[in-house]
Amino acid sequence: MAEIGTFEILHEDAGSQARLGRLWTAHGPVETPVFMPVGTQATVKSMAPWELEAHGCEILLGNTYHLNVRPGMEVIEKLGGLHRFQDWKRAILTDSGGYQVFSLTHLRRMTPEGVWFQSHVDGTKMFMGPKESMAIQRILGSDIAMAFDECPPCPCPPEYACQAVERTLSWAASCAQQPRAPGQLVFGIVQGGVDPRLRERCAEGLLALGAFDGYAIGGVSVGEPEELIMPGVRMTAGLLPRARPRYLMGVGQFWQMAESVALGVDMFDCVMPTRLARHGTVFTRQGRYSVRAAVNRLDERPLEEGCTCVACQRFSRGYVRHLLNVGEILGVRLTALHNMHCYFDFIARLRQSIRAGTFAAFRAETARVYGPDAPGPGAAAGA
Amino acid sequence: MAEIGTFEILHEDAGSQARLGRLWTAHGPVETPVFMPVGTQATVKSMAPWELEAHGCEILLGNTYHLNVRPGMEVIEKLGGLHRFQDWKRAILTDSGGYQVFSLTHLRRMTPEGVWFQSHVDGTKMFMGPKESMAIQRILGSDIAMAFDECPPCPCPPEYACQAVERTLSWAASCAQQPRAPGQLVFGIVQGGVDPRLRERCAEGLLALGAFDGYAIGGVSVGEPEELIMPGVRMTAGLLPRARPRYLMGVGQFWQMAESVALGVDMFDCVMPTRLARHGTVFTRQGRYSVRAAVNRLDERPLEEGCTCVACQRFSRGYVRHLLNVGEILGVRLTALHNMHCYFDFIARLRQSIRAGTFAAFRAETARVYGPDAPGPGAAAGA
Repeated sequence: MAEIGTFEILHEDAGSQARLGRLWTAHGPVETPVFMPVGTQATVKSMAPWELEAHGCEILLGNTYHLNVRPGMEVIEKLGGLHRFQDWKRAILTDSGGYQVFSLTHLRRMTPEGVWFQSHVDGTKMFMGPKESMAIQRILGSDIAMAFDECPPCPCPPEYACQAVERTLSWAASCAQQPRAPGQLVFGIVQGGVDPRLRERCAEGLLALGAFDGYAIGGVSVGEPEELIMPGVRMTAGLLPRARPRYLMGVGQFWQMAESVALGVDMFDCVMPTRLARHGTVFTRQGRYSVRAAVNRLDERPLEEGCTCVACQRFSRGYVRHLLNVGEILGVRLTALHNMHCYFDFIARLRQSIRAGTFAAFRAETARVYGPDAPGPGAAAGA
Repeated sequence: MAEIGTFEILHEDAGSQARLGRLWTAHGPVETPVFMPVGTQATVKSMAPWELEAHGCEILLGNTYHLNVRPGMEVIEKLGGLHRFQDWKRAILTDSGGYQVFSLTHLRRMTPEGVWFQSHVDGTKMFMGPKESMAIQRILGSDIAMAFDECPPCPCPPEYACQAVERTLSWAASCAQQPRAPGQLVFGIVQGGVDPRLRERCAEGLLALGAFDGYAIGGVSVGEPEELIMPGVRMTAGLLPRARPRYLMGVGQFWQMAESVALGVDMFDCVMPTRLARHGTVFTRQGRYSVRAAVNRLDERPLEEGCTCVACQRFSRGYVRHLLNVGEILGVRLTALHNMHCYFDFIARLRQSIRAGTFAAFRAETARVYGPDAPGPGAAAGA
């Protein structure tokens, strides 16, 4: 056991910024690069914690905003914090709530201390700022808290993006002063939209605080066209210190993760494996496809040939298609189990390629199969 | 391994008709009394087969009518029969489709050979009679097929009930002549509504065919007031031969099962554990309650104190309530897992009481906790 917050860099790729690391949290070590499944409402949709444990999952993401709306902090505090509440024994990262406040709610009013808004569930008037966000994350008891940020949607006028960066910096300073849960780490978030100078200003301001255990790239997956995502990552990753974990928020297509790892990014989260599962889309090593398509009606093969997940070990495409077709919960469970297996398998192969010195080839192959120019129905277009 | 179709009576209760038995099927032995979870569309709602295996489940029920509508027999035949399709390695009983044809569909037209009707899904015109029902069940490859019957709803005019019995007998004779899947057993179904003479006529007619491996009590859970269910069982159970398994269709409240076992019934099926789970109602040894109720909001206790199911081992009532409240699939999964555990626990204790000579006390206790006159919110009223 290293000290909590220690980030070990275990191996660095010769041909890129990619590295293997290990971040020590209050709930054990997290190997990086890492994919964090999203458990918005204290559960990864359709999955039980033992199913994530079986995938070797070491860290989940929880949503501060959603958990604060329902069930609310009185419930989570009484029921022993977020780990105990959802019976998750490994690490949890909670987001700051900023993204949801600025994307899900309406009737917002800004003050220097935070934002007034109405709950997306029942319109209840609520306030959140750095103090509130950190207080909620302290009750949640996450291993990694995110500093409360302003995350403007894309597109956004330049002067607004500039103000958002200043507010994000002022709030980050406030977050750094707030009480924390025992062993809780805090990451700062770089905003700045598509302007390299704003990104630079934000990163410098955060680093000057000297208060954070890691740094996140925010605001690159907030409604912009797909071709603006990677430039945002590219202009930001290099601004972040090598010695600390770098977290790219909300980006999780395979080719984007491989490209970002090449830029030195260590952590990812994305709802894609479970969201696409609910729509009947499954991932494979050859691309992705819709199980609901009529062509799978009589197909005896598993969702992916050669896959070792429990769905593929026991069931045919024809069966899974039938379940989805008639609205049976087991259909979504099986596609989610398989997709999550694919994500963990992808990350395992990515890590292995860094270890073996074959990351460049892995990255090229990932771009070929999943990239924006990949051919055929397996392509990632439209994710 | 005894011969397929063998029904061993292992122990008989001194004070009632209750008995412990073992029915040998092509997919292994089934200990009785037995509760069969309902897998209408080739899945027990929200559950995976390994979860039912973990409960020690030896036999499932599948619905001939629903499976014929979706996915249809072309799919199930191509994908290896119902066992392979849903990857269930133990026994399966399929109903005849009669109940669904007469309760779910409209625009019916009767002929001596069967019924014309429109599918409840898309109105497709379909025909089902004894030949069609048995042909479907042969493709499904169930271990126990049910003879195609006419199951009139309650209330029903006496002359119609009489005609339905004659048609049921004529169709039963036809079913007995149809080809079967290898090792497939066939049960006859006693109809006759609330008239003891019609029940007697139907049972005698079925027995005279000398063709069936077991006998079912049909038409006692088809819309009648609850107080007519047990009289229907009482007037029918005694008409059925002691040497063969007796199956009470669609009845599955705990107190009804205990009372029916006392009358010599061996097999039950019911959608209650999973249907009530979806509504947030959980069973306990002390009665049942709604997890969604506000009183459970901050409750740290498991769904049932002392319960050994996985839901109770890991989660609080407050957590399960939250999941149901926000519509997360895991909520329904957990209540279904718990309720199914309760059903298997109930049957295990019922069997043990017969073995130990304490069935009378078990039956009285079941009536006290779950019976129609049971006090408080735990009562079974309104099921």
